[in-house]
Amino acid sequence: MQIGILGGGSVGQTLGAGLKALGHEVMLGIREVTPETLSQPRAQARPLGDWQGATGARVATLAEAAGAAEIVINATNGRGSLEALRSAGAENLAGKVLIDVANPLDFSRGMPPFLLSELSGPTSLGERIQAEVPEARVVKCFNTVTAAVMVKPDLVPGEHDLFLCGNDEGAKEVVRDLARALGWSRFVDLGDIVGARAQECFLPIWVRLWMTGGTPLLGYRIVSA
Amino acid sequence: MQIGILGGGSVGQTLGAGLKALGHEVMLGIREVTPETLSQPRAQARPLGDWQGATGARVATLAEAAGAAEIVINATNGRGSLEALRSAGAENLAGKVLIDVANPLDFSRGMPPFLLSELSGPTSLGERIQAEVPEARVVKCFNTVTAAVMVKPDLVPGEHDLFLCGNDEGAKEVVRDLARALGWSRFVDLGDIVGARAQECFLPIWVRLWMTGGTPLLGYRIVSA
Repeated sequence: MQIGILGGGSVGQTLGAGLKALGHEVMLGIREVTPETLSQPRAQARPLGDWQGATGARVATLAEAAGAAEIVINATNGRGSLEALRSAGAENLAGKVLIDVANPLDFSRGMPPFLLSELSGPTSLGERIQAEVPEARVVKCFNTVTAAVMVKPDLVPGEHDLFLCGNDEGAKEVVRDLARALGWSRFVDLGDIVGARAQECFLPIWVRLWMTGGTPLLGYRIVSA
Repeated sequence: MQIGILGGGSVGQTLGAGLKALGHEVMLGIREVTPETLSQPRAQARPLGDWQGATGARVATLAEAAGAAEIVINATNGRGSLEALRSAGAENLAGKVLIDVANPLDFSRGMPPFLLSELSGPTSLGERIQAEVPEARVVKCFNTVTAAVMVKPDLVPGEHDLFLCGNDEGAKEVVRDLARALGWSRFVDLGDIVGARAQECFLPIWVRLWMTGGTPLLGYRIVSA
């Protein structure tokens, strides 16, 4: 499949490399493709020029990556996701499965981050994205684990769940198939896109577990009667 | 032990009955003890007069329940917890283990509730309680599961974790002992009371899982590398 990834940080790079290795065509979109943006150092990730050389995937603009794609993944910083989707263009997203991997984190007070007040509580980033691009088939998924675990779930030994939600059942099945190819086998469907409120609440938990437990390689298993 | 429970709703009643059944002395505190408050119907719980008769535990004022107790449990509605603790009296809480079971839920827009903005994000109810009664040894615990599971964890089959956090290691051990007597065996220590931000984030997840999965009998297991 042709997959467009929006965002050149560690999440976008890790997902892109993982999906390319499965045989998908991957185009990674950033705001501007220039010699500077391709060579600039990135937190916990390679310069994009190096990533491009190593993976064989292509770096392009947000609009190019979305336009060429059958499946689009939003791997931008949550604070900037709505703006990035505007740059990608509603016409490039219409009718497509849009996997929202982002979290609306506020780092303005340093670590630990917390959820941006305007994107939490009685709303969520996932809902706001679906409202921003109503013709896209938004599925919130993968946002509850660190990037390395998204593409290699067995880095966390033992059974753990992948959460997803969205309004379009067919789109959720596409996402489950993609996740199965990466090694995921247990899914918890949180219903329509309002479930993003719950899914994004894993982030403060995840960060705290990482701080107190010393490893970002974490997963959750839901147990019920 | 002498246990004082603040709050006469289903959580307070369930915890009180469960701890009484273990042989503890339980006094349940409410704002005013009158024939009316003892006979008034309560959501998902018995009138307190009936509860008193059935359990052999006593209903008293918030200050009486806290004053007599060795361990105090805050089982009030999260929105009213700080006010209830003021009524209980700082002098009745000083030096005592105070288990905060409450969640800062906002039901003002109906179901599902979300976290009260003034008690979430860069703060939490647990932290606000510790600041309100600095001489109490606050431990946030039991707030991530429904009342029935608090006192009978095997209602949820399979291994699941009990989360706790607080500034006082000795107080946390007291709480673990109390929980072990109720049947809990797996604990996840989220560090100091700032961990309450993470623990309270389980609530939106829990409510969503209940809505989509159909049962409130839910637990979480943390899996890590």
